[in-house]
Amino acid sequence: ETVERPDPDCYFSWADPIIEEDLKQFRQWGSSTPGHPENFETPGVEVTTGPLGQGIANAVGLALAEKHLAARFNKPDSEIVDHYTYCIVGDGCNMEGILTEACSLAGHWGLGKLIVFYDDNHISIDGDTEIAFTEDVSGRFEALGWHTLWVKNGNDGYDEIRKAIQEAKSVTDKPTMIKVTTTIGFGSPNKANSYAVHGAALGTSEVEATRANLGWPYEPFFVPEDVKSHWSRHIPQGAALEADWDAKFAQYEQKYPEDAATLKSIITGELPAGWADALPQYTTESPADATRNLSQQCLNALAKVVPGLIGGSADLASSNMTLLKMFGDFQKDTPEERNVRFGVREHGMGAICNGIALHTPGLIPYCATFFVFTDYMRGAMRISALSEAGVIYVMTHDSIGLGEDGPTHQPIEHLVSFRAMPNMLMFRPADGKETAGAYKLAVLNRKRPSILALSRQKLPHLPGTSIEGVAKGGYTISDNSTDNKPDYIIMSTGSEVEIAVKAAEELTKEGKTVRVVSFVCWELFDEQSDEYKESVLPEAVTARISIEAGSTLGWQKYVGSKGKTIGIDKFGASAPAPKIYKEYGITAENVIAAAKSL
Amino acid sequence: ETVERPDPDCYFSWADPIIEEDLKQFRQWGSSTPGHPENFETPGVEVTTGPLGQGIANAVGLALAEKHLAARFNKPDSEIVDHYTYCIVGDGCNMEGILTEACSLAGHWGLGKLIVFYDDNHISIDGDTEIAFTEDVSGRFEALGWHTLWVKNGNDGYDEIRKAIQEAKSVTDKPTMIKVTTTIGFGSPNKANSYAVHGAALGTSEVEATRANLGWPYEPFFVPEDVKSHWSRHIPQGAALEADWDAKFAQYEQKYPEDAATLKSIITGELPAGWADALPQYTTESPADATRNLSQQCLNALAKVVPGLIGGSADLASSNMTLLKMFGDFQKDTPEERNVRFGVREHGMGAICNGIALHTPGLIPYCATFFVFTDYMRGAMRISALSEAGVIYVMTHDSIGLGEDGPTHQPIEHLVSFRAMPNMLMFRPADGKETAGAYKLAVLNRKRPSILALSRQKLPHLPGTSIEGVAKGGYTISDNSTDNKPDYIIMSTGSEVEIAVKAAEELTKEGKTVRVVSFVCWELFDEQSDEYKESVLPEAVTARISIEAGSTLGWQKYVGSKGKTIGIDKFGASAPAPKIYKEYGITAENVIAAAKSL
Repeated sequence: ETVERPDPDCYFSWADPIIEEDLKQFRQWGSSTPGHPENFETPGVEVTTGPLGQGIANAVGLALAEKHLAARFNKPDSEIVDHYTYCIVGDGCNMEGILTEACSLAGHWGLGKLIVFYDDNHISIDGDTEIAFTEDVSGRFEALGWHTLWVKNGNDGYDEIRKAIQEAKSVTDKPTMIKVTTTIGFGSPNKANSYAVHGAALGTSEVEATRANLGWPYEPFFVPEDVKSHWSRHIPQGAALEADWDAKFAQYEQKYPEDAATLKSIITGELPAGWADALPQYTTESPADATRNLSQQCLNALAKVVPGLIGGSADLASSNMTLLKMFGDFQKDTPEERNVRFGVREHGMGAICNGIALHTPGLIPYCATFFVFTDYMRGAMRISALSEAGVIYVMTHDSIGLGEDGPTHQPIEHLVSFRAMPNMLMFRPADGKETAGAYKLAVLNRKRPSILALSRQKLPHLPGTSIEGVAKGGYTISDNSTDNKPDYIIMSTGSEVEIAVKAAEELTKEGKTVRVVSFVCWELFDEQSDEYKESVLPEAVTARISIEAGSTLGWQKYVGSKGKTIGIDKFGASAPAPKIYKEYGITAENVIAAAKSL
Repeated sequence: ETVERPDPDCYFSWADPIIEEDLKQFRQWGSSTPGHPENFETPGVEVTTGPLGQGIANAVGLALAEKHLAARFNKPDSEIVDHYTYCIVGDGCNMEGILTEACSLAGHWGLGKLIVFYDDNHISIDGDTEIAFTEDVSGRFEALGWHTLWVKNGNDGYDEIRKAIQEAKSVTDKPTMIKVTTTIGFGSPNKANSYAVHGAALGTSEVEATRANLGWPYEPFFVPEDVKSHWSRHIPQGAALEADWDAKFAQYEQKYPEDAATLKSIITGELPAGWADALPQYTTESPADATRNLSQQCLNALAKVVPGLIGGSADLASSNMTLLKMFGDFQKDTPEERNVRFGVREHGMGAICNGIALHTPGLIPYCATFFVFTDYMRGAMRISALSEAGVIYVMTHDSIGLGEDGPTHQPIEHLVSFRAMPNMLMFRPADGKETAGAYKLAVLNRKRPSILALSRQKLPHLPGTSIEGVAKGGYTISDNSTDNKPDYIIMSTGSEVEIAVKAAEELTKEGKTVRVVSFVCWELFDEQSDEYKESVLPEAVTARISIEAGSTLGWQKYVGSKGKTIGIDKFGASAPAPKIYKEYGITAENVIAAAKSL
C-alpha cells in the first residue's frame, strides 16, 4: 500500500506519508505515530502541540502569517496567498491562560480566516468539567472579540458542522469559535462520556463492544475499499488545486516579478546573497552602548535585507529596543506591517512565533521581553526547540545589571536553565561585534531557536571580540602567553567579559600570562572539535576562573575541579547596578583574588 | 518619628514599620522600599507581585484560605475567621493568561469576599492599550462567573468607590471586579495619561508643575500634621479591632477548645509533636512501587496529622496521585474540604498556592502536575522561592521513564534548571524511604519551597536509603571499601539509583570497591560541612560516574574533571520506557563501561 507523495515544494515539508504500518506502530520506538503530534516526526502535522494551549496559539501565528503575507503580496487581480487556519481545542486548552492570551490577540487583530472548533465534551482527565471549569466559554470568546457559533450535535451532525463552517467564513473581520458539543468516546457502550477514554486504550472487550455498537464488522486496521476510494479522491483534488496555484503563481511572477521573487524567497527560506554584510560593523572605537541598543541596530539592519523578519515585544518595545523603524505596526487594518504588538502576553507571544516560523520557512519571527520573564513563556520556548522553529528570542535586562527593579526582575538561574535545554542556542554577547555575530547565527539557524541575553547597561566594544568568534561559541579574545600555556584562563560572558578583561590587565601588570575567553554560546563551543577545544582550554592549564552575573551551576564543566567560579547563587536586590555588582562580588578584584588563590 | 509597631502575633509577620527615611531610600541598597513590592523586605506587603498577574492569583489563594478556614472553624455563634481580600490589577495583569486562570477558579469557587479593582487607565508601557488590548474586560470577568461594577471617575470619585465596595460586599456568592477608570499620572500637567509616568521619575520640573497643579505647597517628603493625624487614627482603630478579636478568640477557645487548638496551630505554624512519625515506614521488603504512588501514601499519612495540608493537581489527580482519601473536594459549597481541583491551570495553581502559604504560616499547600509542565508555572515557582512561600510541588512523570507520551511530556533540562534556582529544594527520591524523607523536609521548610520529582514507573526499595540520608542531600547508600577510598564512586538520583546499584554489584563481582551515592537534593548536600562532603566524595577518588535520566549539565560539579556523566542531552521519544532507557544508554552496562574507561 503506498499513497502518492504530495509535492515537497508546498508550504510544509513532507516526508514519507503515513501508511497503515505506522498506525500499527502507534507510540513505538522509531515510528512516525508518536504519543502526541510532532511536526518533525509525522508528515501532515504542522506544529507540535502536546502541551495544552500551544496549538491554538500556534494557529493564531499561522493565521497572522497568512494575513501578513496576503496583505504584502496579494494584488487586486491575484490572491496568491489565501487560506484558512483551522484548529481544534478541548476543555483543557480552554483552561490554560495561554489560550486567552493568544485569542485576545486574534480578536484584536481581526483574524477572520481563523476558525476554531471547541470540542465541548465536558470531560477532562480528572472527570466531569463541573469540578473545575464552569465558566461561560462562548461568553469569554465574545468578550475577546470573536464570532461564536454552537453546534449542538457534534457526534454525527455533519450538516450542522458544514453549515457552521460556512457561517464562520461569512464573518471576515473576526475569528470564529465554533463550540461543538460532543460525547467523548462516542460509540463505546461502557466508556463513552467518561475520562476512561482519554489516554488509556479501550481494551479488547470494549473495542469489540464498540465495533458491534457502531456496526463496524471489519478486522482491526482493515479499511474497506469504499472508504479508501472516498478518501483517496482528495489526492487528485489536491493535485488539481496545486496545479491551479502553480499556474496562478506563474502569471503572478510574470506580472509582478519583484514581489514574486520576494515571496518565493520567503516560501523557500533562501536568504538573499550577502545579507549578513548588512549587519552593523563595530570597532573598539564605537561608542560604548547597551547590547539591547546594539541589538536594535542589528534588527533594523537585518529588516532591510531579510524580507521575512517580523516580530515585536510583550509591551516592552521601548525597553527591549525591538521596534523596526522603517515599518509600522501589524494591526487589523495594516497587516502588511512588521512590528507586532503582543501586549503583556509572553506565553502566547512565544507560541504565536512558533506558528509564524512553521508557517513558511522564510518567515523569521523574533519576540522580546525581559530575560527573567522567560519563566512565563518557557512552555512555548521548549516547543520552539523541540519542533525546530527558529524563533529569535530577544531577552534584555539580562542580570542584576538592570538594577533598581529588583529581584523579581533579575535573572539568576536563567542562563544555565537554557544551556541545558536541547536544541536551544543561548547567546550572551559581550559587545557590538558579538551581538552582530549572535544575530548572524540566529538568522542562519532556521531549525534551532536562539536566545540573545542582552544588557540594560552600557558596555565597551572590546578588543579581540569578533563575529567569527561567536560561531565557535567560546574563543580567546586576549592572551599574553605564547605557548598555549597561560598562567590563568579567565572565562566569562556578556557584561562580565569587560570585568574579566580588566582583571587580566591587572594580572598581566603583575607579570602573569592570562587568557580571556568569551563563552558567548556554550552549545556551539561543545560542538567544536577536540583540537579546537584544546586550543582554547588546554588541559594542562587548571588555573581557571569563570565570572558571570548568574548561577555558577554548570561552569564547573569548563573551570574543572581545580578552578573557581564567581557568580550569583542567591536572588538579586533592588539598588543601582554598580552597587549590586560590588555587594555581590562580581568584580575584577574578586577575579584577581580567586586567581591568586589557585 | 516612630510609629507604634503592630502586634507580631497577627496573621502576617511584621518587621519594623516603614518610616519616612525608608521612602527617601526608595530603590536603594538595603532599604525596605525596593523597586517592586517584596513581602520579605517590607512590612505590610503580604505577597511579592512584581511580575504581572501574580498578585491577582495570590489574592485568589488568600481568599481561598479565608473561605476554607472560615468553613472549618467558624461556629454559628462565632465568626472567628472573617476578612475580605482586596487586590488591584492593571491593564498588564489583565493581558496575562495567569489572571484568567486564577479568576476562572475564583468564579467557580464563588469567592464572594474577593474584591478586585481594575485600574483601567488605558496605558501600558508601550503606550495606549488600543495597540494590543481591545477586548471587553468586564465581559470576560462576567463570563468567568464574576460580579462586575464600573466606577467611571476613579481619580477623585471617592464616594463612587466607597459605594462600589458596599455593592461588592452585598454579593456574597461571586467575587467582584470593580473596573475603576483612572488617569495614569493624575495631576501631572504634561505627563498624565501617557506611558512616561509608568516607571521613570517625573523629573524635577514636572514634579514642581504637578505640585502646583494639585495645590500641594509642601517640601518633598513633608507630611502635614492634619494628614498625619488623619492616617494615624487607624492605629488605635486597628488596636481596638485586634483587642475585639482577641476577646472573641478567648471565648471561642473556651467553648471549642479542640478547634481553637487546631486553628492556633495553623495560625502559628507549629506542627503537632511527633507528626513525622506518621510518615509511612518502608523496608527493602516493601513491594516495588512508583514514587508517585509512595508520594500519595505520604500525603495521605501527613494529612491525618498536619491540619494545614491542603492542595491538589492541575487536572491530573489520578496520574499525580495527589488525592487525600479522607477528604472531599474544596468547592463552592464544600469549602471545608481539602482536595483542590485546579483544572488545567498550572501557572494559576502555583500562584494560588503562594497566596495560601503566605496567608497563614500553618497552611501547607501542595500542588501537582507532570514535571515537564513546570515550564508553564515557573513564574509562580520562582516567586515561591523568592517570597519564602513553602509550597510543596509534587511533580510526577519525571523523566523519559514516562514512556509513550513522548518528548513534549518528558523532562530533560528541568532538574538542573531548578537546582540553579535560589532557595528552591529540588528532591528526586529513589524509593519509599527517600520519598518519605523528602516530604519530611518539605513540610519542615516553611520558608523554602520544595519540588519532588517522582516516577511514573515502579522502583524497588533499596538497601541503604534512609529518611535521615535525605536530610544530607547526598549520602552513601552502599560501599564495599573500607578506607574512604573506593575504586569508583557512582552517583545518581531517583529512578536511576537502582541502575547505579546494579552497576556497583557487577563491578564488585569483578573485585572492585564501589561506593553508590544517592544525590537526592543537591542544595542540601552543598550546605553540609566540608568534612561531611569529604566523607562522601573524598578528593582522592577521581574515578566518579554520574547517571541520571536528564541533562548532564551541572553534574561536573560532583564528578570532577576526570569523571564521566551519563545522562540525556537531547529530547526524548515516544516508546515504552525500557526501550527508551536502552536506546538512550541509561543502563548499568554503560555505567560499567564508563567506570572501566576511567
